Amino acid sequence: MSEIKRPYCLFLGDAKLKTDAKIATAIVSFRPGDVVGSVKLADSKVSYEGVKELSIKEAALNGAKSFVIGCANLGGFIDEAWVPSILEAIENGMDIVSGMHMKLEDIPEINALSAKHGALLHNIRHTNYDLKPGTGKKRHGKRILAVGTDCSVGKMYTTLILEKAMKEKGYEADFRATGQTGILVTGEGIAVDAIVSDFISGAVEMISPDNKPDHYDIIEGQGSLFHPAYAGVSLGLLHGAQADYIVLCHEPNREYMRHLKAYDVPGIEETISLNIQLGSLTNKNIKCIGVSVNTSLMQEGEAQKYKQDLSAKLNLPVVDPCVDGVESLIDNL
Amino acid sequence: MSEIKRPYCLFLGDAKLKTDAKIATAIVSFRPGDVVGSVKLADSKVSYEGVKELSIKEAALNGAKSFVIGCANLGGFIDEAWVPSILEAIENGMDIVSGMHMKLEDIPEINALSAKHGALLHNIRHTNYDLKPGTGKKRHGKRILAVGTDCSVGKMYTTLILEKAMKEKGYEADFRATGQTGILVTGEGIAVDAIVSDFISGAVEMISPDNKPDHYDIIEGQGSLFHPAYAGVSLGLLHGAQADYIVLCHEPNREYMRHLKAYDVPGIEETISLNIQLGSLTNKNIKCIGVSVNTSLMQEGEAQKYKQDLSAKLNLPVVDPCVDGVESLIDNL
Repeated sequence: MSEIKRPYCLFLGDAKLKTDAKIATAIVSFRPGDVVGSVKLADSKVSYEGVKELSIKEAALNGAKSFVIGCANLGGFIDEAWVPSILEAIENGMDIVSGMHMKLEDIPEINALSAKHGALLHNIRHTNYDLKPGTGKKRHGKRILAVGTDCSVGKMYTTLILEKAMKEKGYEADFRATGQTGILVTGEGIAVDAIVSDFISGAVEMISPDNKPDHYDIIEGQGSLFHPAYAGVSLGLLHGAQADYIVLCHEPNREYMRHLKAYDVPGIEETISLNIQLGSLTNKNIKCIGVSVNTSLMQEGEAQKYKQDLSAKLNLPVVDPCVDGVESLIDNL
Repeated sequence: MSEIKRPYCLFLGDAKLKTDAKIATAIVSFRPGDVVGSVKLADSKVSYEGVKELSIKEAALNGAKSFVIGCANLGGFIDEAWVPSILEAIENGMDIVSGMHMKLEDIPEINALSAKHGALLHNIRHTNYDLKPGTGKKRHGKRILAVGTDCSVGKMYTTLILEKAMKEKGYEADFRATGQTGILVTGEGIAVDAIVSDFISGAVEMISPDNKPDHYDIIEGQGSLFHPAYAGVSLGLLHGAQADYIVLCHEPNREYMRHLKAYDVPGIEETISLNIQLGSLTNKNIKCIGVSVNTSLMQEGEAQKYKQDLSAKLNLPVVDPCVDGVESLIDNL
């Protein structure tokens, strides 16, 4: 994959909530220095503190090099309503970055205009790496993997916060992106849910290669071993990561598995235990260092009690990384 | 995928052993009536009883409609040495069928000549189905899945023999192909190791859809939950199949996991138990109906004793389907 040029102009489309623009939200949270400003359609309600709302022309004049589609939709397609903005960004000299399943060049106007202006089209869900099947071969260095009871329970946030905190404490540590948002935050990685299934564990081996003995790869997890649609991806990730340490991520207010009302969210102990059981195939020393919970939907007192009770029950640190930081997880390495 | 026309001319390339030509060998075993003859390069040593060795011209004159690359190589690429034969087959009016990772049209001469002659190029490892993530939703009808201690332990053979035997006994049963050889045998299916990883379980749901309550889908398995490279594919297959019944396939003479000397072959009981444990996510009633062993590398007496001892230990039928048939497995449904 050719380099994604910074800084970014974040395109929010018609996103009503920050969760509709999860790529933009993550970039603003973890790489605010890479952002020139945001551009949105008339019916969007989203704005970010400290991020200027600009026209495409203004963003270009302020030095934006890449126009990042920061919103998402269910089908992973490029919305017709977004196309005029994409074309205007190309005309203003920007490259385009998309995390959609559909490729930018499959839209004829975008394809033609990018050729005319020499703009690069980055489809970050489509990898250009030369992938191979996993080998299971032991690598040097340490690896931490975020695993979850479900999809979208905070694995990327947890690992990005871990990277930041570990670097501040003097560890050599690198976040390794396995999804499109993570790739945009760091500028590299492989979207493992978008590659050929034969190569899942091989791709994870590739993004977290042999390293110095005291270096930490902090690998973003995907899905859940208990999700009927995505467990295969989660297992390939676990095997490829050869995780020394896992952090279990959980969203306490979820009623059922994402998009699947017929499936209950599994228990936290059960999820830790299955990850340890299956992960030990490629690393016998796999260990859980703690639990990361997203308590944003709970009252403060309720959240405190929940974390204390869970911590006592599991005999493991339990934190909401956005509230408590991740110090206690790092202490448990 | 457009229909693959029959009958076939089987191309053996320079295969030295029948195992080098595993696609051709499987088609000859299970669909001999679809085969006009075989074509091979000068240095191949493979021939099949009852299959005429022909020139490409003779195969065409005998009515062959598709030229099937029946051999394989490690990298999954189309060997330069095969290209002249492929071109000659196109000139003689045949379509081309390849199970390689590399696409036929990526070789310019093949692409140009197929356009000129109106020949279809079938890349059966590349699916054209419109895939979706799995839903985990319960489907009607029964499903049998072959699982294994390792790759290449006889899952396809076991399921094809089961289909034949069940049909002979009056069951409504259909083999469902999940790999390129199986697809060529039946003319349809999805190579699950070659699709985008987000869709593994969804693809299996698609090839074994809702059916009559007493219909059996007999689903070809892939890989092993204990293989560090492919376990993710195996788990997605298990979840998508919602298997009511599993048959455990095993090759007793294997010393280590395929291509991975550092990994021991897991125990049979352990493998059955993990498949039941993980498979119960999408089907609580999952049950193992027996074990299929490939005893082709054992002496007859040794094989008999092995099967008897194993059967007594597991309290399950144990058969080599090519020697004993699969009656006892069917009796256990």
